[in-house]
Amino acid sequence: MIYDAAIIGSGPAGLSAALVLKIHEKNFMWFGSKNLSDKIDRAEMVNNYPGLPAISGKALNQAFQDSVKSMDLKIEEQMVNQIMALGDSYAVMAGSDFYEAKSVILATGVAAVGTLPGEAELVGKGVSYCATCDGEFYKGKTIAVICNKARFEYEVKYLADLAAKVYYLPLYKDVAIKQDNIEVMSAKAVKMNKENGRLSSLTLSDDSQLDVDGVFCLRDEISLGTLLPKLALEDGHIAVNRSMATSLKGCFAAGDCTGRPYQYVKSAGEGNVAAHSAIEYLSTLDEN
Amino acid sequence: MIYDAAIIGSGPAGLSAALVLKIHEKNFMWFGSKNLSDKIDRAEMVNNYPGLPAISGKALNQAFQDSVKSMDLKIEEQMVNQIMALGDSYAVMAGSDFYEAKSVILATGVAAVGTLPGEAELVGKGVSYCATCDGEFYKGKTIAVICNKARFEYEVKYLADLAAKVYYLPLYKDVAIKQDNIEVMSAKAVKMNKENGRLSSLTLSDDSQLDVDGVFCLRDEISLGTLLPKLALEDGHIAVNRSMATSLKGCFAAGDCTGRPYQYVKSAGEGNVAAHSAIEYLSTLDEN
Repeated sequence: MIYDAAIIGSGPAGLSAALVLKIHEKNFMWFGSKNLSDKIDRAEMVNNYPGLPAISGKALNQAFQDSVKSMDLKIEEQMVNQIMALGDSYAVMAGSDFYEAKSVILATGVAAVGTLPGEAELVGKGVSYCATCDGEFYKGKTIAVICNKARFEYEVKYLADLAAKVYYLPLYKDVAIKQDNIEVMSAKAVKMNKENGRLSSLTLSDDSQLDVDGVFCLRDEISLGTLLPKLALEDGHIAVNRSMATSLKGCFAAGDCTGRPYQYVKSAGEGNVAAHSAIEYLSTLDEN
Repeated sequence: MIYDAAIIGSGPAGLSAALVLKIHEKNFMWFGSKNLSDKIDRAEMVNNYPGLPAISGKALNQAFQDSVKSMDLKIEEQMVNQIMALGDSYAVMAGSDFYEAKSVILATGVAAVGTLPGEAELVGKGVSYCATCDGEFYKGKTIAVICNKARFEYEVKYLADLAAKVYYLPLYKDVAIKQDNIEVMSAKAVKMNKENGRLSSLTLSDDSQLDVDGVFCLRDEISLGTLLPKLALEDGHIAVNRSMATSLKGCFAAGDCTGRPYQYVKSAGEGNVAAHSAIEYLSTLDEN
């Protein structure tokens, strides 16, 4: 089945787009976190979201949850690893699954942690963003896993059951996962190195080097350059026009990923516009 | 005194801009209605304002009022009649007063009722938007008053106390005003006619003609073409870029007046961006 749209991201931009698509009875997939936005959850106090005065980040995220419930929206928690433009539609790779959608709304936010030097060029050559897709290739091998959220530990476990050895480089505190072949490192990865066109090792923040066959990056924010390679960027953000259309036909973007100011209501406004533009785009497809 | 900014309009775009300017401790005037938005008040149900699920228009407008109160924002209820670009600042004519501001944020909405044929070219030549500014010119004369809101009847009374005869052309039901020299018409004005470069008469919807010395148009939404004459428009809306900057330096716009989709959260998002852009603009003035 081909969906009308796929929304990537569950912050205010993604939510706002989902509300509009639902009202317009579009058949869409919404990828994100059931917690919507960890970032908002952590915000101390928000004073400039009109209609919700002097609200804590936690309460604002809860208000957004109320919107999700009220419109009976479904969030798919699979991580979107890559999107490919197929011409008249898009292939969305999420976890080990594959979805096809006529339009895409990118609401991925901005990555707090960017990609590492050397990372982008080694995607598919030792660097993977998807444990369930690529884990099997590393059966009995030595891998590193970089991970910025405790909730991805189940994927680390999946990898450790396959690999001979896992160097684990968490970007969060209170690591809970324990397994004989998992070595939790205190240094951070700072660079990816290659040999013969493939990943060969990681350089760590203590200047040591880790020889590995592969590295898995489990982040809840995807680097724009690797997500949808042909997308035109501008100053590190997705280039969009006033209709939130990107450089790719049928692909729209909204929220922090389109640029500053990084403000919740700006994101919500853009998500609404992106969804309306996607609906208009879908109507032109129907005419043909 | 020169204000940092003047915001024109008290819908979600104006409110959102006001919240940001207040947080950034800017010295600004906010022109609008203490009721914020009659249009939202009348909306039946709003399902796509993220964080305020399935809310009635009345309750949404009340939530916006809560934001106004929470940040102690002041709304100036004078009607802005015209804005003039002075070079490095703007002159804002509101009622019979005059304000100067370094930047302007237009959040005027879209006029439900447009201007009449012949109106734009006769502004200042028999056509006025401000009873208290121009009323005295029509002492003992015959005038027409076109008015779209009952709450402007006090201005009609002011005019009737000056003029010999007032033809009243209301665009709302339940007219309350009564005075010997006020004749309430049931036909609508459809055209303004001129003679020797000045307004001479109105053509009404029943094809009759009303000879008048002047006509006052009391509308709560201002036509963009007459508000700030040099502003570049696009398809009847204010032309803006992604920063909500208009064609005039220091002049920003947000909300329905910048184009579709006419959506509350789109307006709120743009108000936030416009205010951030105005703040950035003000900082460049400080450097000089």
